[in-house]
Amino acid sequence: MTLVIQKYGGTSVGTVERINAVADRVISHKKKGQNIVVAVSAMSGETNRLTALAQQITEQPRGRELDVLLSTGEQVTIALLCMALEAKGYTAKSYTGGQVRILTNSVHNKARILSIDEQKIKRDLGDGHIVVVAGFQGVDEHGNITTLGRGGSDTTAVALAAALKADECQIYTDVDGVYTTDPRIVPAARRLKSITYEEMLEMASLGAKVLQIRSVEFAQKYNVPMRVLSSFEDGEGTLITSEDNTMEQVMISGVTANRDEAKVTLQGVPDEPGVAVAILGPVADAGIEVDMIIQNVSADGTTDFTFTVNRNDYIQTQTILEKVKHRLNARSVDGDEKIVKLSVVGIGMRSHAGVASKMFKALSDEGINIQMISTSEIKISVVVEEKYLELGVRTLHSAFGLDES
Amino acid sequence: MTLVIQKYGGTSVGTVERINAVADRVISHKKKGQNIVVAVSAMSGETNRLTALAQQITEQPRGRELDVLLSTGEQVTIALLCMALEAKGYTAKSYTGGQVRILTNSVHNKARILSIDEQKIKRDLGDGHIVVVAGFQGVDEHGNITTLGRGGSDTTAVALAAALKADECQIYTDVDGVYTTDPRIVPAARRLKSITYEEMLEMASLGAKVLQIRSVEFAQKYNVPMRVLSSFEDGEGTLITSEDNTMEQVMISGVTANRDEAKVTLQGVPDEPGVAVAILGPVADAGIEVDMIIQNVSADGTTDFTFTVNRNDYIQTQTILEKVKHRLNARSVDGDEKIVKLSVVGIGMRSHAGVASKMFKALSDEGINIQMISTSEIKISVVVEEKYLELGVRTLHSAFGLDES
Repeated sequence: MTLVIQKYGGTSVGTVERINAVADRVISHKKKGQNIVVAVSAMSGETNRLTALAQQITEQPRGRELDVLLSTGEQVTIALLCMALEAKGYTAKSYTGGQVRILTNSVHNKARILSIDEQKIKRDLGDGHIVVVAGFQGVDEHGNITTLGRGGSDTTAVALAAALKADECQIYTDVDGVYTTDPRIVPAARRLKSITYEEMLEMASLGAKVLQIRSVEFAQKYNVPMRVLSSFEDGEGTLITSEDNTMEQVMISGVTANRDEAKVTLQGVPDEPGVAVAILGPVADAGIEVDMIIQNVSADGTTDFTFTVNRNDYIQTQTILEKVKHRLNARSVDGDEKIVKLSVVGIGMRSHAGVASKMFKALSDEGINIQMISTSEIKISVVVEEKYLELGVRTLHSAFGLDES
Repeated sequence: MTLVIQKYGGTSVGTVERINAVADRVISHKKKGQNIVVAVSAMSGETNRLTALAQQITEQPRGRELDVLLSTGEQVTIALLCMALEAKGYTAKSYTGGQVRILTNSVHNKARILSIDEQKIKRDLGDGHIVVVAGFQGVDEHGNITTLGRGGSDTTAVALAAALKADECQIYTDVDGVYTTDPRIVPAARRLKSITYEEMLEMASLGAKVLQIRSVEFAQKYNVPMRVLSSFEDGEGTLITSEDNTMEQVMISGVTANRDEAKVTLQGVPDEPGVAVAILGPVADAGIEVDMIIQNVSADGTTDFTFTVNRNDYIQTQTILEKVKHRLNARSVDGDEKIVKLSVVGIGMRSHAGVASKMFKALSDEGINIQMISTSEIKISVVVEEKYLELGVRTLHSAFGLDES
């Protein structure tokens, strides 16, 4: 019998009416003869309400107690969803993370799942029950309640799918799938029928917000087929799976834009061994993550060293570089917040040459100047002026033939 | 080292400010060198909010899922109280019922505590922590979440006191102790310094709402000294303990009034063996509880049979008796909703004769007619017209010397 894990996020269970709608959707699958395990988030707004209560008491609640507090959010949802399923004539059984049990490490507020005891769930499924599990939460080996951090419910769903060897892990959200790019920027954006884990990981890390990176990594590791679907309308959604299962032979699957980064440059650095470490060491020591890095050599024997950081770290990074400048006897610290990183992602570029030149030509034809370039096996990213975000995305989307015909 | 269990109800933890005030009170005891375990209820209003959510989904939620839902209420409180204690510089540790663990039977919504594993709490106390336990909840042997029903947090506190062999179980409420009678009726009512379990049980079952009967029974069974105190002001409260510890040698400890009952009479019943069963059997079969029972024999060989039931069962009881009337060939069914049961309670009446006559004379002097009488070893109850409630209570309170001097 087919076993499907379904995950519904906070918006999908945000009201009693929506919980009833989720129950109907679950039942429609059950009627097809599928076994169903549902993982749910807290009702939208609930986590904020609880966090606000904690903040009224202390600005820095201890992680252990914050997890005890926040984990009540999903516990409310599992109870209400089971009630809705039972009111509609189906037997259902709820489990908190601790009850399953979902064993995690002891890092409160961002725990990692270590293992899932699937025995109770298997028995319940065998008895014909629909099983509803609280997402986002678990317990450590001492029985302390833990939470998994942002997007944890997706991870719970995938972990359940892996432990139960489910046929598919369905992530229900407020969009109906993964798109070639943001449809708000490019109305001609197409929903992808399928995409590989690698592509999804690149797209997620480049700004596509449909799925949490951790859950995709988890799915890839255990080869769990994931599917992104809408909670509010019917449809096939987008299947995320390993390369072998991908039927579409396209060069590029998607175009992303990320304006969370800022660019800083240390100019006129003596071109000597160890310069990169001297510059990036203090940045890393401050806990600042660096994304793209470029180093150019000038004719005068000095070098310009440029890298990008999160915009939130922009000011602090400049302060650090001012100190580095004096130490290295460099010329100046420069920077720009008004940038955007445009990326094309596609497993197809492994076997197709010319993706980079096609990308650069398309941008150049529109008069968009490229400031930085970075590449990986299945991705090319460029930094351009922020004002070119929409034009750049539309240009690339069209250049790589992604527009809906 | 002294070990004190403190229980704070929903009103005492109803807001963040009040939770902070509770934290201060707990800390003031900790500073005296006491070990403290706190049991808390859900913030006032929270249980109603959760119940309303369930009701929006189904009128009859299954007990198991209702318990999963309701138990989040106390879980929120334990987390917030621990945060407050830690923000004030003390280490605290929260436990849900399942984490302690508080083992109950599997009767959802009104489970009974079977045992408490006190190991973790003892270790935490030994490490200098303040321990905060969710009241009202536990788990059954299968790990299902259970709740104890109304007043369950009091029971949790007493059960913790018994398991940990605490020196005292302090119940903090919105009143500052147990009074000789309702101060809203008799302004001269006095707070009792102490009272026995038996007296407290009689007073609670007769309408005094300070403590839940189950928790007092539990305390009596395990000989746990209980103390009722105010959350909002300092004071000694009222100690509830076994007879031996009672210092006050008074005849009567309190006067109660209960207007929850109604009286029904079957008149002109043939005075034969088996009549009581013929009458009360069908009533009991309908799940209706009977309190006081009186049977008078008339000169004509018939009998009048009178008993009291809860007012909610009044109509149904009359319907049942109409059928019984035909079967027994009785004369008529009669009844009165407008009654009140006045009671005097006191362990002292065991050794003092004349309590009953003193009571009857005091009421008679005020022209209050007695309709029914029932006695136990430490209690005398009379039923009178409801309009005499206040006059009757004041009269008895004064007659037995309970007025504040």
